[in-house]
Order: sequence, then structure tokens, then C-alpha cells
Amino acid sequence: MKNKLKVIFLGGIGEIGKNMTLFEYGNDIIIVDAGMSFPNEELPGIDYVLPDITYIKENKEKIKAIFLTHGHEDHIGGLSYVLKEVKVPVYGTKLTLMLAENKLREHRINDAQLNCIKPRTHVQAGCFDIEFISVCHSIAGSVAFSIKTPVGFVFMTGDYKIDYTPIGDDFTDLPRIAEIGRRGVLLMLADSTNIEREGYTMSERTVGATFDELFTLNSERRIIVATFASNVHRLQQILDVSKKYGRKVAFSGRSMLNVTDAATKIGALKYEKNMVVDIDKISSIEDKKITLISTGSQGEPMSVLTRMAAGSFNKVNIGSNDTIIISASPIPGNERMIYSVINNLYKKGAEVVYNMLEKVHVSGHACQEETKLIHTLVKPKFFIPVHGEYRHLIQHKNLAMSLGQSERNILITEIGNVVEVERNSMKKIGTVPSGSLLVDGLGIEDIDSIVLRDRKHISEDGIIVAVIGINEDNGEITAGPEIISRGFMSKEPDSFNESIKQVVLHTLTGLELKTLPRKDIQAAVRKDLRNYIFKKAKSSPMILPFIMS
Amino acid sequence: MKNKLKVIFLGGIGEIGKNMTLFEYGNDIIIVDAGMSFPNEELPGIDYVLPDITYIKENKEKIKAIFLTHGHEDHIGGLSYVLKEVKVPVYGTKLTLMLAENKLREHRINDAQLNCIKPRTHVQAGCFDIEFISVCHSIAGSVAFSIKTPVGFVFMTGDYKIDYTPIGDDFTDLPRIAEIGRRGVLLMLADSTNIEREGYTMSERTVGATFDELFTLNSERRIIVATFASNVHRLQQILDVSKKYGRKVAFSGRSMLNVTDAATKIGALKYEKNMVVDIDKISSIEDKKITLISTGSQGEPMSVLTRMAAGSFNKVNIGSNDTIIISASPIPGNERMIYSVINNLYKKGAEVVYNMLEKVHVSGHACQEETKLIHTLVKPKFFIPVHGEYRHLIQHKNLAMSLGQSERNILITEIGNVVEVERNSMKKIGTVPSGSLLVDGLGIEDIDSIVLRDRKHISEDGIIVAVIGINEDNGEITAGPEIISRGFMSKEPDSFNESIKQVVLHTLTGLELKTLPRKDIQAAVRKDLRNYIFKKAKSSPMILPFIMS
Repeated sequence: MKNKLKVIFLGGIGEIGKNMTLFEYGNDIIIVDAGMSFPNEELPGIDYVLPDITYIKENKEKIKAIFLTHGHEDHIGGLSYVLKEVKVPVYGTKLTLMLAENKLREHRINDAQLNCIKPRTHVQAGCFDIEFISVCHSIAGSVAFSIKTPVGFVFMTGDYKIDYTPIGDDFTDLPRIAEIGRRGVLLMLADSTNIEREGYTMSERTVGATFDELFTLNSERRIIVATFASNVHRLQQILDVSKKYGRKVAFSGRSMLNVTDAATKIGALKYEKNMVVDIDKISSIEDKKITLISTGSQGEPMSVLTRMAAGSFNKVNIGSNDTIIISASPIPGNERMIYSVINNLYKKGAEVVYNMLEKVHVSGHACQEETKLIHTLVKPKFFIPVHGEYRHLIQHKNLAMSLGQSERNILITEIGNVVEVERNSMKKIGTVPSGSLLVDGLGIEDIDSIVLRDRKHISEDGIIVAVIGINEDNGEITAGPEIISRGFMSKEPDSFNESIKQVVLHTLTGLELKTLPRKDIQAAVRKDLRNYIFKKAKSSPMILPFIMS
Repeated sequence: MKNKLKVIFLGGIGEIGKNMTLFEYGNDIIIVDAGMSFPNEELPGIDYVLPDITYIKENKEKIKAIFLTHGHEDHIGGLSYVLKEVKVPVYGTKLTLMLAENKLREHRINDAQLNCIKPRTHVQAGCFDIEFISVCHSIAGSVAFSIKTPVGFVFMTGDYKIDYTPIGDDFTDLPRIAEIGRRGVLLMLADSTNIEREGYTMSERTVGATFDELFTLNSERRIIVATFASNVHRLQQILDVSKKYGRKVAFSGRSMLNVTDAATKIGALKYEKNMVVDIDKISSIEDKKITLISTGSQGEPMSVLTRMAAGSFNKVNIGSNDTIIISASPIPGNERMIYSVINNLYKKGAEVVYNMLEKVHVSGHACQEETKLIHTLVKPKFFIPVHGEYRHLIQHKNLAMSLGQSERNILITEIGNVVEVERNSMKKIGTVPSGSLLVDGLGIEDIDSIVLRDRKHISEDGIIVAVIGINEDNGEITAGPEIISRGFMSKEPDSFNESIKQVVLHTLTGLELKTLPRKDIQAAVRKDLRNYIFKKAKSSPMILPFIMS
């Protein structure tokens, strides 16, 4: 293992090389990011998904530190879970650490060693030396990492875009990235999120011009803007345009209050104190003098915007003098939810502006031309595309090859892969445990697939429980059969239940109840009921025969 | 009611004025379209949704005929269900009737009176006179209707786009529409589907150029195209480009075979007989000599493309010499499914082309400029936007007003609304029953919301059944408590079940089991269990206490 660098990709579900990446050399391991993923419709009732960290648990003594690229949930949401296993220092920029601290407090972790690092400075951790490099993204305080390892330099872009006219103090430090490239980079891991998109993503600043136009058009109306709480630069622009047009601003939604509070404290969000009012006070302010900034741009069921649209948010009543600006594109899978919110807002007589971002395409991730720039500056020997589904990684590989990178110096990985890198070679050498941990409620549980399969089955066809009491001594039926069903439909439930009882009785009559093992009785009842119900109702509910003695 | 026309909007869920519209005058009713809708994620296990046709059942003797605009499921999918109630003639164009006949055969309706009508000809039905007008759409044989009623002319666009260079014999008959407009239209009902999109949708023919380019680029490879079976014009273009490049074509997927069979018979799809081969024969044909056309462009779970991607379609093995062209945009809500199919295809080493339609934006529905043209030609006195969610209707209303239509001559309706139209007025006068019928399996059932709520509850948190046997005479516990759970997780199910039993026993100990009504015992058990489980697992499964005597 000597003189060999291992790169290990952990993660929840979906994107590869996103939530958590480990670098190991000899007896030293550093962890980059500790995030979580969000469930898809195949995971009913699951709140979020954590990476399997068995490998971290088994190598506790090697772990030297955790480095965070930025404060989004998919990069910091699993931090408390990792820190419960390994008490190591955490390094990040100011806003990232403020947001991480909020999360840790929720999980009652008060002893974390959080170390604030500024871009263009270094941290030593074991045999690794990590330099922080400022990049633009849809949250303030984002960084890329240049990691000096015994075999050479690794460059990780993190989530990034290039913005020549950024809002706030963040910028993509192209001069430094160029220097790093000139010095020589052995391996690059780069963001593939927007690899399907041609051209450049527009500067965050272009959104400001659109806001200005919308605030002029709606000068007599109340304006409500829904956006991501973590997009501090967007919030800054809404504050600025509100100030210009003489409006106060109220924030609404738990995450919105958390983030604006943190960002204000560290100076990432700048405004005069009297600009911001409490949401409880907005009823006393004229419509044209107030901007309300809320969560819910994705139509999330419990968010402020969804509740306002449904008329169940008691602090704000939506009416015909309201203009709602949805300042975020729908994440694939959320379209129906957000469109349902928009329909409801229209029904309340409000105006809704929700496609402004289609015109000025602003994203937090590099498109194809920006990606080409980074490849050209960094010129890595080896390249691993990360942050994307399989199709994104393949397309990023194709893009790198179109720039002259040789195919054998590019690796496509999956969650759980271990890659070994030497000065002159890079190869997959194996895997580590990589199942994901599904979290439901507040507990962390390793839900197995049977539970999910059962949930899906019942949600589609319902469940029928048949309870029968049998005297073990003489095999007589002492009680039931009784039938309980849920989520199962029938035109005449009472008569249908009665007919099910008869089917069960008929099955039992043909069996040696005294001697036959319970499980065989259950199997016979299940089989006959399944056939009967499918024949009658063309439906296959879950059937649970239950025998009491 | 004399001299008053009633327009009644029936439908399943979602879009308004889409699935079914009734026109009533005196003792005559005609039905335009008899479609169904598809369920969203709020309706687990539901296959499709039919309109409530109580009003049709209650007015059977008035119904004179059914007119079909085109052969898509959302316009013909409920036909068999309506024809079971009213035996009236059905009028449509050739392809529409062929597809309708296929559906009727599935439902064993063999006595339908299907009448084939050509564009620019008329049908009399009661006091109504209906003219068929050719329009372009994403299926061949689409028509608009000009309906002469005793109060004036009604113009219904149906689903349409404008295409100056159409494929096949269909064209949007603008000269005739202009004449109809000049004659005077009292009321127009017009398609709002693409009202959010600026400009024009491109001609279907532009897709042909893209296919040509892709076939050139992939001249040595096997080409698989996934598209909608009903898009006969698209199929024609794939056949044409295949012929040009010396490829045979195989069709795959049940609906693909049904539609191509029908379209070939009536001459809507034109090709030399020996061009098309059976899918079973393609293994004997060189990759570069074959095009496979399949269903599954939306990632539908049972479709051919999904099965090929998963390696479970035994007739075709996907490999590195395959190029798969997905020739359809994802319908909102289907993105995750189709992307998962694309990832799987890439993992098998194939090339996938799936964003070609983003470049040449081709849709079957009119965009803003086309919609303006129709409004300008038809110049209706009254206007009702249809075919869209609430937000689309509002935006279509705004567009009509921007063209000079007065706001009081425009009505926004909802499913179930009854609109009364006279020569000089239009107003909503009430509603008819409009709940939707949810269909699960083959039966039509009126599933109530409790069933769906239960399914959703169980799918998110699972279910726990506690069975207890109680002697009614003396109140003694004779059996159990026994616990069954499904879809509920716990790290240690056995010990957790044991602790649940203890909670139930503890609850029972405190009750007067001899005298207390069963339902009070159940309520007490449910309450204590719910609190215990929430405290322990932060989860709220459905709890069903069940008492046997």
C-alpha cells in the first residue's frame, strides 16, 4: 500500500462522488464533505438517506479531519452522524460552519472542533496539505480544494460555477486555479451536474435586472418571493431591490430564518437593520411597501408558500394585490408539487411569475464551456468526473476526451468504489460497504428492502388481515375468521368481507387443523384468498392470515 | 331554458375542458370526446381516472351522438364506459375510429355505431350541425369542430398546432378556419396546453433533419428509437430515414404494434411491405441494417425500452454498438423514471441521444404566436380557454385580452361547471356531479378518499395490528396480545414487538374488560400504542387493535 493514494467514494443514493469522499494514504485518511441525499418515490416515508460509513467506523484511528466544501445539505447534512463516530477537527469557511453548527445543535453535538479557514490558506492533516480556493456557487462561502498528497496534487472543484460579476465577496479564483494547474495536478475530481447544458450559466447578477423590472411592474402590489434559503446572494439582491423601491423585507420559514440569521451575523448578508421587519408586523404595512421572502420554491408540502397557497398560513392571506415570484427552477420530480401551488395561488386571484429563470438561465453549476475552462486551466493527468448520475459522468468523460484527455486516464466510478492512484497509474481496486442508510423520523435505521417493498405493495393494493382462533388441542375453530382491511376498495365492503370469511372457512374445513403446522395453514389461507380476491376484484392486496391459539 | 345553449365540462383530474365536453340545447345533447386522465402520486395504485358521467346517465334520452377530436387516450380512453350507458352513434376520422375500436374490443363492446367522417364535411345530430376541420397534432387524423347551434356557431380547436410543412395528409385548415371566423363565431373553446411557451412550435418536419444527421453519425451502429406509438408522423419519418440509409425497421411494444397496424391499414403510415421485419428476426440482421422502434420514451415501468435497459427483454440485448434515440420530451413527473432508464442504457455501454428535441422544439400543441393567429382568424364573441391547468387558463385569458377580447366575455371554468350561452351573454349557472372515478385493475370503482388516505399513511409509516382475545363473560384475556407489523421498521423487531405486547397488556390491565364496549378498549389500546411508538421510534404507523371474543 506504500506510496499509493486511495480515493474512496461514499454517498447515499443518486449522484456519485457527491456526499462524501475519502482520501487515504498510509495511516492517514481525510474526509471531504459529509452530506446526505434526498429520497425518490421508490422510498416511501423516508425523510433522508445517509451514506454507509462502515469504512469510517472500521478505520477510526486513521481519520485525521473533515473538510467541507460548502453548506448545502448534500454536503453537510450527515456531519453529526459522522462526528458521533469520529471526534476529529472540521474545517470550512465561515458560513459553512455556521450552518453546520445549526445542524449539530439539532443533534445535540456541542463539542465539535470547528475551524474556520479562509480561501488561499492551508491546513495540514496527516500527510495531506489542503488549500482552500474560493469558488462561486448558489451558496456563499463555497470552496474548491487543492490537496497535496505524497503522490501528487489532487484538485477537487466541489460544486462550482464561473461568475465574472458575482454578488458578495465570493469569486471563482481562476488566477489561483491557473497557478495550481501550471504547478501540475495529478488528479482532478470535477462537478458534472450541468454537463448536459451547452454554453455558460449566466451570472447571478443578471437576476437582479429581472427583479428590478418586476418590482417596477408591480410597484403598487405586495411582492412575495419564494427562493432557496441558502442562496444568500439571491437574498442579497432581493434586499437591494427592495431598498431601492422603498420596501421593507420580512423573512418567513424556519430554514429562511436560520440562514438569514447566520448570514447576517457573519456579514455575508448586508442591509440596514431597520430594513427587516418581523412577519407578524407586515399587516400594518402598505402592500407596496413590503417584500416577503419565503421558503417553498419547490412546492414542499409544509413550506410557507404551499401553506399560503392553501390558505392555511395564518400570518398572510393571499389576494388579488399579491404578486408571487418563484425564484428557482423546479428540481426534477418536484414539478407537479410546485405547479399545484401555482394553480392555487392563481385561484386566490394572485399574479404568479414563475418562468423568469427560464429566460435568464442562472444555475449554481458550471455548464459545458465553464467546464472546458477548468479542464484547460487545471490540465490534470488523471480525471474522475463526479457530482452526477451515471449519464452525467459519461458525458463529462466525453467532454474531457474532446479536450485531448486520453480515455485510459479517465475513470467512471460508482458509490462504494475504491480508486488507487500512483504517479503513473490510476485504477479501481475494489469496493467498500456502500448500502445507504434510510432515515425515517429522527432515528437512524437501516431499513431493509422488505419494509419498503411492503409499503409500496400496501400503498398500491391495500392490506387484508384475516384472524382465526384455533384450539391447538382439538383443532376446532374457536374464533373468527375476522377480517380487517385497509387501503383496499370494494363497492360493498360488508358483503365482500362476509364472502372472504366464507372463503377462509372453506379453506379451513379442508385442512387437518389439529396436526398441520401453523405456517402451512397460513399458506393455504393466503393462497385461496389471493386467488379469490384477484378473481373478484382484479387486485392483489397484501394478505396476512393470523392464527391465534 | 329555451334559446339557451349549455356547455358542460366533465373530466377526470387535472386539465379542464379536456376529457369530455357536453353541448345541450332543449332536448338535445352532444358529447365531444370521451377520454380519461392519468393519476398523479396522490393516487397510489390507481391505473387511470374516468370522468363522473352521472349527468349523462340522468339525461340518457337527450344524448344524440359522440364526436371525437382525435385518438389519444385522454380523448377516447373513456369511450367504452360511456357507450355502456348510452348507445349512440360515434363520429370521428379514420385513425381515431380504428384506435377507438381497439379499445372497445378490449372491453368487449362489439355493437358500437362508428361513423367515419372526412374533414370539411358535416354531421347533423339533434339540433346541432357539426363540421369536421382538419388540424395538425402529434397524432394523425386530428380535427377541430365548428358546431352550428340554435344560438350561433361554436368553434372548438381540439388539440392542435400549426404546421406549414406537415408530414402526411393532415394540415391545419387555416383557410377554412378563416372563413368560419368571417361568418361569425359566438363562442370559441381553445387549447391552452403550451400557452406558457413563447413563439411557435417547430414543424414536425424539422425532426426529420435531426434524424438524418443522427443516422449519418451512427451509420455503423444499431439504432433504437423510442417514441410515442400514436405519433404516426414521427414513425413515418423514422421509416423514411431508415429506408434512405438502407435499414429495415422492426416495431416493438404492444401499443406500437396496435397503432402501426391500424395506421398501415388505413394508409396513414406508408412504406414498402418488405421494409418492416418481425422483432424475432432482427438478430439475423446486421446492426447497421436495422432500426428498432419501441415504446418507453417516458420510462414507463413495463415498456420495452425500460426492460431493454434493465436487461430483462429477451429479444434484444443492449450493447456498445447500440445508439438509443429518445424521441420525446419527458412529461412532467416522469423525469426520474426516464433518467433512470438512460443511466441503465449508458451502463450497458450504449450511446444515448435524449436531448435532440430540446434543440428543435417540436410539440403537438400551439405556442403563443400560433394561439394568437387562431384568435385573430376566429374572432369569437365569447371565449373559454380549455385544455390546461388553472394557471394555463389564466394565461390564455391574458393572451386573449392582449388581443382586444374584453374581460367580461371570457370565462375561466372548472371541471363540473355548466356555462349558459345566449346570443348576448355567457355565464356560469351551476355545476353537475364531477367527482372522478378511480380505476384500479379492471374494475371501475368509486374509491373514496379514506382508502387513498390509508394507503398513503401505511406507505409512509407502516401498519401494526394488535390482536387480543377477550372472554366476553368474565373479561379475561384468553389470547394474545399478538402483534403483526408490515412496512414498519425497527432495529430489533423481536424485542420491539415484545415491548409493544407489554404496553398493550398494561393498557388492558387498567380497563374494565368485562363491561367496557369493544370500541373503547380499542381506542385505549390505540392511544397508548401510538404514544409509545412515537416516543420510541419517532414514527406514526397505522395502528389497528383487534379484539376477538
